[in-house]
Amino acid sequence: MKAKVHVTLKNGVLDPQGKAVGHALQALGFDGVGDVRQGKYIEIDLADTDAGAAKARVEDMCRKLLANTVIENYAIEIE
Amino acid sequence: MKAKVHVTLKNGVLDPQGKAVGHALQALGFDGVGDVRQGKYIEIDLADTDAGAAKARVEDMCRKLLANTVIENYAIEIE
Repeated sequence: MKAKVHVTLKNGVLDPQGKAVGHALQALGFDGVGDVRQGKYIEIDLADTDAGAAKARVEDMCRKLLANTVIENYAIEIE
Repeated sequence: MKAKVHVTLKNGVLDPQGKAVGHALQALGFDGVGDVRQGKYIEIDLADTDAGAAKARVEDMCRKLLANTVIENYAIEIE
């Protein structure tokens, strides 16, 4: 199975990387660009065959390694 | 409108960041973890009101700034 994980900064946490992308887009002449937020996207191949167990394991991975839950949210899709 | 952009390395391009994550997961005791690939996830607030025009503009942003199309693919969702 494949797990797709999105790790994004929580609302209210300053995102300098997103701000830099937003300014660069404006400097390139793109108008009407508002807030830009940048996060991480991680694809993990798993040997699991049960989707529920796989999701629980990936949640564990997020809490232990992939996301800093103080400032980041994560979302998991299992395929 | 909001654009959600995924930028991922093309197949066959070495992904040291993904490899490092995979090794760290194994070191933490997660078994059955195969290939791990890490990409970028970017959310952009746009003033556009037409979804088609917004998508065309975001494609332009990807080609000019967000993705290195030599080694990266991008996927765009407009909401």
